[in-house]
Amino acid sequence: MLGDIADYQASAFLMAIFFRGLSLDETVALTRAMLESGERYDLSAIPGTKVDKHSTGGVGDKVSLILAPLAAACGLKVPMMSGRGLGHSGGTLDKLESITGFDIHLSRNRFQEVLSRIGCAMIGQSDQIAPADKKLYALRDVTATVECIPLIVASILSKKLAEGTQALVLDVKVGSGAFMKSPNQARKLAKTLVKVGKKLGLPCRAVLTQMGQPLGYAVGNALEVVEAIEVLRGNEKNHEFSSSDLKELTVQLCAHMLELGALAKNLTEGRKLAHKKLSDGSAWRVFQEMVEAQGGMREQILDPRKLPHTSRTLVWKAQKRGYIASMDTEALGRILVEMGGGRKKMTDSVDPRVGLAFHKKLGAAVRPGDPLVTVYAPEKTDWPALESVFRHAIQIQGSRKPVPKLILEVY
Amino acid sequence: MLGDIADYQASAFLMAIFFRGLSLDETVALTRAMLESGERYDLSAIPGTKVDKHSTGGVGDKVSLILAPLAAACGLKVPMMSGRGLGHSGGTLDKLESITGFDIHLSRNRFQEVLSRIGCAMIGQSDQIAPADKKLYALRDVTATVECIPLIVASILSKKLAEGTQALVLDVKVGSGAFMKSPNQARKLAKTLVKVGKKLGLPCRAVLTQMGQPLGYAVGNALEVVEAIEVLRGNEKNHEFSSSDLKELTVQLCAHMLELGALAKNLTEGRKLAHKKLSDGSAWRVFQEMVEAQGGMREQILDPRKLPHTSRTLVWKAQKRGYIASMDTEALGRILVEMGGGRKKMTDSVDPRVGLAFHKKLGAAVRPGDPLVTVYAPEKTDWPALESVFRHAIQIQGSRKPVPKLILEVY
Repeated sequence: MLGDIADYQASAFLMAIFFRGLSLDETVALTRAMLESGERYDLSAIPGTKVDKHSTGGVGDKVSLILAPLAAACGLKVPMMSGRGLGHSGGTLDKLESITGFDIHLSRNRFQEVLSRIGCAMIGQSDQIAPADKKLYALRDVTATVECIPLIVASILSKKLAEGTQALVLDVKVGSGAFMKSPNQARKLAKTLVKVGKKLGLPCRAVLTQMGQPLGYAVGNALEVVEAIEVLRGNEKNHEFSSSDLKELTVQLCAHMLELGALAKNLTEGRKLAHKKLSDGSAWRVFQEMVEAQGGMREQILDPRKLPHTSRTLVWKAQKRGYIASMDTEALGRILVEMGGGRKKMTDSVDPRVGLAFHKKLGAAVRPGDPLVTVYAPEKTDWPALESVFRHAIQIQGSRKPVPKLILEVY
Repeated sequence: MLGDIADYQASAFLMAIFFRGLSLDETVALTRAMLESGERYDLSAIPGTKVDKHSTGGVGDKVSLILAPLAAACGLKVPMMSGRGLGHSGGTLDKLESITGFDIHLSRNRFQEVLSRIGCAMIGQSDQIAPADKKLYALRDVTATVECIPLIVASILSKKLAEGTQALVLDVKVGSGAFMKSPNQARKLAKTLVKVGKKLGLPCRAVLTQMGQPLGYAVGNALEVVEAIEVLRGNEKNHEFSSSDLKELTVQLCAHMLELGALAKNLTEGRKLAHKKLSDGSAWRVFQEMVEAQGGMREQILDPRKLPHTSRTLVWKAQKRGYIASMDTEALGRILVEMGGGRKKMTDSVDPRVGLAFHKKLGAAVRPGDPLVTVYAPEKTDWPALESVFRHAIQIQGSRKPVPKLILEVY
């Protein structure tokens, strides 16, 4: 029974797993136990194939905001239960809540109604979903046992199994802004997710993607909604050195979802369909319907200048000539946390107005004085401290290094 | 500050140590922190050299009851703070408390007065002594992290440093009745105790001793007091195959204490002095004085038949001819726990009356029908279950195996 195990025993158990690991069967058993600690949604009455996406978390990762309506526009049903941001990594719920009125706490019935009618719904995990995961996650957070593959796998899959999805695409981030800094660890996580999902009857596709720089250009809750809307409306900025990484990744993940959900024969077909539904405005229409159905203010998304924002902006400029060689993406993510736009602990509240808008991506040529980042700062900002972080976090070198591939591997 | 660390963090910390170990310096730091969590007795006003003994715990180990008065009779001061029994291993305090009135809760002043006047005092650890150890021990008990060398070392030494002893002899048990079943583990524990003690200014001597059979003949709180008194009075039983292991070990440990305390030039001289003070009745007189000073009933120790005992006895007899080849000493210790004479958890109370009196030791020749163990049983005894334990725990073989040495190594 939930609550039968004392916290001090659960935390010792977590630390034992941290150092000793779990076998595949043990991970399956833990995932199942966590799933069965709460409710499991039955979405079989809703027509269509239910496919969801989960990201292990990165900086500037607003893919879900575009992908859920896009996949729905392509014909899938996307029952997306998301989490809040913690540490340097943002959370989809916090981004959505920068839209005034957006309600992430739909009842079970209302969630199914929105999902059925519109094709996607984006909500928070209710207390009835995998409550054992909530308890264990809180203990992991205070016992330094978060970064542990079997515990990560059980946490992700127990919740996704509970929400009732029939298949799952996993975006496993690797690099300076990801929880998994090394490709080997990320690879192991990806493979374990797929194996455990399979054993529990959930077909999974894991995509290893680069998190060596923020995804897209915006970091910060309201700013990321603005950027997502720009992609949905087809008027994303055309930067001097735009890699269009955000749109590219969203389309690619959508193609995987379509293939898994049997709405596309292969990835090429999936990409084609995704591009079509993005460019013809279908995805944008689904997004608007979803925001409206979940109580969000329509005027804000039609005119993103009405989203909350700070009036105070500061610009960090290049100090020398060269090419952007590397970004300490986690450090950049932590700037947002320091400005109040992210959480140090789960009970912190989040300021949706603050954020960073990047002007240059990895590999871009810069000259002294070129703006690199516009900071949407809160009233009180320790600018010298910020400058010091930027100086160390964004490295400019004389020669141009190859930019790492966005999508590294697929499992 | 004590209490500042949540139990769930402390237990995760313990589990991390369990799997990762601690370096010597880390063990020293933990021991010091645990020592400094409470009071430290200053015994410098009491004349004489303060030397104590600690045993890692075994079955039938009543050495302290004889050794403390014996070492005191030889001229040392023995400030003995002991623990209670847990699991298959008995505790000195429980044994002493089978003497009606014996008070193990002396105040600090009273403890020092008894120690100064009589030469030894045997008390329980007060709440003011190493309170961090109490907390950590309770957590270790419920998180399966008891058997971990750095944690054992910090627990033992923090308490012994706090009681104010100037030197310490450690009886590290190894074998079927010890917590350390393997000589390698016991050896590592012994060496670590000596090294950490040295770094903290406490000269230690660690003696590895055999716990492949109960020590002496009696197992059970009141029965062990009786056996200790017999040795102190010089009329220990002369069994057919007596190895006199109890007396031999006590004299040897006393010699180490005397050498450490500079009252003997070497072990031979120490043994000689110990034998003298045992045979001339000096140790016995000190024991009587200590019992009297701590409120124990004099008539009971002068006539041990007046100690609490069960009227119901049962005898387990040899089933075949041969030699006693091995004893599962832990299983024998657990019989006592099952009969109520030991604890499964710290809050259990203990029945001083029950116990086992062994008639034969390892290597003894037996014939069918020879009594092996007399059981001093409580009113309700599941005799068939007991017989089954004895049948498996005491192995009789056709040929005589060599009996292992009592004292294996000294560090």
